[in-house]
Amino acid sequence: MNKLNKQSDFQTPKVTTGPLPSSLKRYVQSERFEDVKSPVRDIILHPSSGEAPLPVYDPSGPYTEDNFTPDVEKGLPAVRAPWIARREQEGYEGRDVKPEDNGGATGDYLARAFPNVPQPKRYTGKIRTQLEAARAGIITEEMEYIAIRENLGRKQAAEGAAMRQADGESFGASVPEFVTPEFVRDEVASGRAVIPININHPEAEPMIIGRNFLVKINANIGNSAVTSSVEEEVDKMVWATRWGADTVMDLSTGKNIHNTREWILRNSPVPIGTVPIYQALEKVNGIAEDLTWEVYRDTLIEQCEQGVDYFTVHAGVRLPYIHLTADRVTGIVSRGGSIMAKWCLAHHKESFLYTHFAEICQIMRDYDVTFSLGDGLRPGSIADANDRAQFAELETLGELTKIAWDHGVQVMIEGPGHVPMHKIKENMDKQLRECGEAPFYTLGPLTTDIAPGYDHITSGIGAAMIGWFGTAMLCYVTPKEHLGLPDRDDVKVGVVTYKLAAHAADLAKGHPAAKLRDDALSRARFEFRWEDQFNLSLDPETARDFHDQTLPKEAHKTAHFCSMCGPKFCSMKITQDVRDYAGGLSDNEKADLEAMSEKERQRGMEKMSEKYAAVGGKLYVAPERVEEEKVTGPDHQ
Amino acid sequence: MNKLNKQSDFQTPKVTTGPLPSSLKRYVQSERFEDVKSPVRDIILHPSSGEAPLPVYDPSGPYTEDNFTPDVEKGLPAVRAPWIARREQEGYEGRDVKPEDNGGATGDYLARAFPNVPQPKRYTGKIRTQLEAARAGIITEEMEYIAIRENLGRKQAAEGAAMRQADGESFGASVPEFVTPEFVRDEVASGRAVIPININHPEAEPMIIGRNFLVKINANIGNSAVTSSVEEEVDKMVWATRWGADTVMDLSTGKNIHNTREWILRNSPVPIGTVPIYQALEKVNGIAEDLTWEVYRDTLIEQCEQGVDYFTVHAGVRLPYIHLTADRVTGIVSRGGSIMAKWCLAHHKESFLYTHFAEICQIMRDYDVTFSLGDGLRPGSIADANDRAQFAELETLGELTKIAWDHGVQVMIEGPGHVPMHKIKENMDKQLRECGEAPFYTLGPLTTDIAPGYDHITSGIGAAMIGWFGTAMLCYVTPKEHLGLPDRDDVKVGVVTYKLAAHAADLAKGHPAAKLRDDALSRARFEFRWEDQFNLSLDPETARDFHDQTLPKEAHKTAHFCSMCGPKFCSMKITQDVRDYAGGLSDNEKADLEAMSEKERQRGMEKMSEKYAAVGGKLYVAPERVEEEKVTGPDHQ
Repeated sequence: MNKLNKQSDFQTPKVTTGPLPSSLKRYVQSERFEDVKSPVRDIILHPSSGEAPLPVYDPSGPYTEDNFTPDVEKGLPAVRAPWIARREQEGYEGRDVKPEDNGGATGDYLARAFPNVPQPKRYTGKIRTQLEAARAGIITEEMEYIAIRENLGRKQAAEGAAMRQADGESFGASVPEFVTPEFVRDEVASGRAVIPININHPEAEPMIIGRNFLVKINANIGNSAVTSSVEEEVDKMVWATRWGADTVMDLSTGKNIHNTREWILRNSPVPIGTVPIYQALEKVNGIAEDLTWEVYRDTLIEQCEQGVDYFTVHAGVRLPYIHLTADRVTGIVSRGGSIMAKWCLAHHKESFLYTHFAEICQIMRDYDVTFSLGDGLRPGSIADANDRAQFAELETLGELTKIAWDHGVQVMIEGPGHVPMHKIKENMDKQLRECGEAPFYTLGPLTTDIAPGYDHITSGIGAAMIGWFGTAMLCYVTPKEHLGLPDRDDVKVGVVTYKLAAHAADLAKGHPAAKLRDDALSRARFEFRWEDQFNLSLDPETARDFHDQTLPKEAHKTAHFCSMCGPKFCSMKITQDVRDYAGGLSDNEKADLEAMSEKERQRGMEKMSEKYAAVGGKLYVAPERVEEEKVTGPDHQ
Repeated sequence: MNKLNKQSDFQTPKVTTGPLPSSLKRYVQSERFEDVKSPVRDIILHPSSGEAPLPVYDPSGPYTEDNFTPDVEKGLPAVRAPWIARREQEGYEGRDVKPEDNGGATGDYLARAFPNVPQPKRYTGKIRTQLEAARAGIITEEMEYIAIRENLGRKQAAEGAAMRQADGESFGASVPEFVTPEFVRDEVASGRAVIPININHPEAEPMIIGRNFLVKINANIGNSAVTSSVEEEVDKMVWATRWGADTVMDLSTGKNIHNTREWILRNSPVPIGTVPIYQALEKVNGIAEDLTWEVYRDTLIEQCEQGVDYFTVHAGVRLPYIHLTADRVTGIVSRGGSIMAKWCLAHHKESFLYTHFAEICQIMRDYDVTFSLGDGLRPGSIADANDRAQFAELETLGELTKIAWDHGVQVMIEGPGHVPMHKIKENMDKQLRECGEAPFYTLGPLTTDIAPGYDHITSGIGAAMIGWFGTAMLCYVTPKEHLGLPDRDDVKVGVVTYKLAAHAADLAKGHPAAKLRDDALSRARFEFRWEDQFNLSLDPETARDFHDQTLPKEAHKTAHFCSMCGPKFCSMKITQDVRDYAGGLSDNEKADLEAMSEKERQRGMEKMSEKYAAVGGKLYVAPERVEEEKVTGPDHQ
C-alpha cells in the first residue's frame, strides 16, 4: 500500500482516550505554586489485597483522564500558559508559512492546516532557559512539577529507603532518596539534566532527562516519502504516550512536514523532538549539496515558533572526520549525518552546523529549545562500533556542549546505535567524560545485527544495560527497524519494550521507588490475584489476552491455579502450605536445622577432599581452588 | 479451549520440513571416523555479493534437508547406532509400561503408543559416560562430531583470528580459536562441559554445553493437565529445533506423559531433558507427600530406557533450607522445588533425592544421562533474588556436583529465574566457584517482574548478560510465561529471542566466528541486498513479512532504498557516494584534515577554558575533572 494519500479525504485525527485498566489519574497539588499540579496514575488493586493503590509515573496527559474529550482541532489545554505569562516574553508575528515548508505539496496533496495556530512567543529577559533560571537559583514551575512527578506519588522518602537505595549499582549516578525542586534545579544548573520545553509548546507537561532521575524513553514517529498520513501520526503520538513514551520525535521526511508537526505539537502532552535538517532537505528538493545555512536557519526558526522542544543537530559531523568512515562495513547510517557528510564533501567545506553553532545557540535560547547533539557518525553495525569516526565525533560533541552551555542552552547527547555488549560501557564512560556529564540519549544500542524483525529485542538488551550504566533517555527501536515504518502495533511493542528496559535500569541503579511495582506485581502473582497482575503490568491488555488464550473463563481469573500446572498441582499453592508450616518453627528449631545442614556439609566436603587426594586432585577442581586455577591452570587454547 | 482431547481422533503428528530460505544443509565428513558427519547450514548469498555461502550452526536435524520425508511413526534414523554398537553395552528387556506411566489414562483418553519402540540398551563396560571416556583420554565419535560443528564450517582458525578473539571480554572463559576433538575431550574431562546423550537416544545429534563453546539455548514444551496433545508437542519440538533450539525439555505434567515422550524422543534430533519428579508425582495422583524413593527410582529407569538425555533433579532442596523461603515475596516457585519442599515437611525428613543421590548417579551412569541439578529454591521475583535460600541450595549443588563426578556422571547446574541486572554477575561467579566450573544453565533471568506478556524480553536481557558472563545454556522464556502455555508461535518467538541473546553473548565473549554472520548481514544491508538480509537473519520469514508490509512489490527487494527514507533521499546511498569521494583522498590530504581538526579543537578548547575561568569554573565541569568531581564533589542526596 503505497500511501501517497490524497488529502481531500482528510479526517480530524482520532486518538485513543480513557483510563488504563483499573487506573485513576490523579493530580498532586504543589505547595509552592497554586497552578502546578503533577499527574500520577494510581493502579487500584483488588480489595482482597489489602493494599493501597500503586502510584506510577504517567506521561500520557489528559487523554487518560476519566472524562476527557479531546478537541483535536483546538489542541490540548495549555497547562503552562500562566507560568509563561509571568515571565519576560513577548508574542510576535511569526514567520509566514511557505509552500516549501510542506515540501511544495499543493491542492489535493496538501494536508489540511491545523485550524487554530497560536501566535508564537519568545523569551526576552536575561533568563530565557531553564538552565539560566537554575544557574540563577530560581526554582521554576517546571522544576516543581518535575520534582513531584519523579517521586512516583511518594510524599517523602520511605522508611528503609536508604537500605533499598543501597541495593543497586549506580556507576556514579546519585539518584536521591527523594527528589526536591532544589535537587532538580541543581541538576539542571550543572548540565547533568535537561528539561526540554519550548515556550511555544505550552501544552506539554514538564519532564526531566538526567541520569539522577528515572530513565526515560523516546518514541519515533513520522511520515515518509512513501507512506503515512497526518491522522496516523497524531494517533501514533497519543498512542505512544499512552503506553509510556516520555518524549516523541517527529521524524517526518516527506511532504506536509509543517502541517503534520503542527497537529502533533498542539495535541502532544510530551516534549516533541525533531531533526530540522530533514525538513531543510525537503526545502531544497532533497539535494543535500543545495542546503545552505540560510535555509537551515529559516527552518530552525519555523520549528522554534511551532514549539518543537528539542532539536537533533548533527554538528559533530565535521569535514575532517568523514574519511574515517570510508573503511567501515556500513559507512554513515545516520540520515542527518550522511546529509551533512554529502554537503561537506560537495563543497569541501566545514559543516555549516559546526561553523554556525553559536548562532544556532542564540536562536534556540530565545525559545528554550534543547539541543540533542546528534551522532551522525554512529556505527550502523557491530563491526563499526567504537571506532575512531564515532569517538572523534563524540569528542566534538563535548566541545559543542560547552559552547551551548556558554550560551545558556540545554544540551543532551545522542549515542549509538549498534554496539556489542562488551563495548557498551566504554561508550557511556567516554560520553560522561567528554561531555561534562550532559545527559546521554541513545538509540538502543543493538547488541547484534543478525535479527531484523526482532531489533526491539536486540536493542532492548543494549538499552537496559546502557540505561543502567547511566544513559538518561533511551530511544526506542521497533520490530520494524531496518525493514519498514512502524505501525500502531509496532509503536506499542517498541514503547513497552523500552519501558521495561528503562525500568530494569532503574532497578539496577537502585532507584528508591522502582522496586515497589515489581513487588506489588509479584505479590499479586503469588496470591493468584490475576486481575491485579494484569493491571500492574506495563501492558494489561496483552497480559490478559495471553492468559485468556489458554484459560478464557472469567472463573479462571479468580482460580488459584494457572494453565502451566492446572488445578491439581500448583507450585505456588504448595508454597503457601510450606509457608504455613515453616511459620510454625521456633527459633531453636531453625537453629537446629542450620546446624544440621552445616554439619552434613562439612562431613560431605571432607569425604570429597579425601577422594580428590586419592586421585591426585587432577580430575576436578575443588571450589576454593577455582580462582587460583583460572590464573595458573592449563591453557586450553 | 479446555483441550482434554479425546485420543480416538489421534493423527500421526505432522512436522515442518524443508530447508530454510536460501539454505543448504551440508554434512562435513570426519577424517577420524568414517561414520561421523557433522551438519552445517550454508546460507547462499546472491551472486552479486561475490561472497561465499555463510555456514551457520544447525541443530534442526534431517528435517531441514532438501529431500527428507520423515516417517514419524518410525522415528529419525539412528545416527549414533553404529558408534554405540562398537562400545561395551547390552540390549535387555526393559521395564514394562504401566498404566500409571500415562497417569492412568485409559480408553479414549489414552494417547496412542508409539508403534515402533526400540529395545532399551545400557552400557556395561568400565567406561559408560562421555566423562569417563574423556578422563581415560578417549576421543569419542560424539566429541569428534561436536568439534566439527562448533567450528561453524571453518576448516581451521581464520587468519587474523587472534585479533578478533581479543575483541571481547570473556570473564575467564577460554573459547579457542579453533575447536579440536582434543579440546572437546579435555573440557568434558574437566567437567567444564557436558555432552548430554543417552545410549537410548541414538537419533540425537551430539552437541556440547560448556562456557568455552557456543552458547546454547533450550526450549521447553510439554502438555499439562489442562491443555495440549501429543501431536502438538511433537510438532513444537521439531519447530523449536528448526529455529535453533539446541535442546528441548519435555515438561509434560498431565496424562499420557510416557507416550508423549516416546513420540518426542524418537523424532528428536536434539537432546531431550525432563524433570522426572513431574511424572513421579502423576504416579501418586498428584499428592506430593505420597512420593517415595521407589516410585522416583522406577520413573528414572523408565525414562533412562526411553532415552531422555538429561534429568533435572532438585536434590538441593533440603529440609534445612525450606524455612529460609518463608519470608519471601514469592516463596518457592519451582514446581519441582515445591514438590520436594512439601514432601520434606510432610515427613519432616531430608529429601530422598539428597539421601539417595549416589544411587541416582549409579542409575544415570549406565545410560550416560546427564544431571541438570535443579534450582528448586530459585527466586520467583526481583525481591527474592540472591537470597540465602537460593545460595544455600547452590552451595549444596556444588557438593552434589562432586559426588556425581565421582560416579563418572556428567553435570550441569540450573540457575535463576528473576534477578535484577546488578545481581546477575554474582550468580555466575558464585556458580563457577561453588560448582567447580560445571556448566551453568539458567532460566533467563528476568530483569524485572512488571512486564508479563513480554517476559521473553525481560528475560532475554538477563540471558544475554549471563551468557556473556559465562552461562553455557540459556533456557528460553516465551511471551506466555506466567500467563499460559506457549503455542507454536510463542515457541518460535522464544527460540529466536534466545538465539539472538546467545549470539549477543558469543559476540561479547569474543567467539572467533560469531561476528562473521553480523558482518555478512550488515554488508547485505548496506548494499541493499534485501534478499540476503532476510536470508541471513535468524527469522527470514518475519523479516520479509515486515518489509513487505510497507513495500510489498518484488521490485522493492532489489531497489536501492527502503521505506524509511524513500527513493529520493537515502542515507545509505549517500554514504556510498561519500565512500567513493573519500576513497580518492591521498594520505597527505588525510593527514592535513586531521591536523586541521586537531588545531581547531585546541583553539576551541582554549577559548572555552578562558570563559570557564571568567565565570569561576563553577557552572560546568571540564571533562578532565569529571572523575575527580565524582569523588570529591557535592553530594546531592
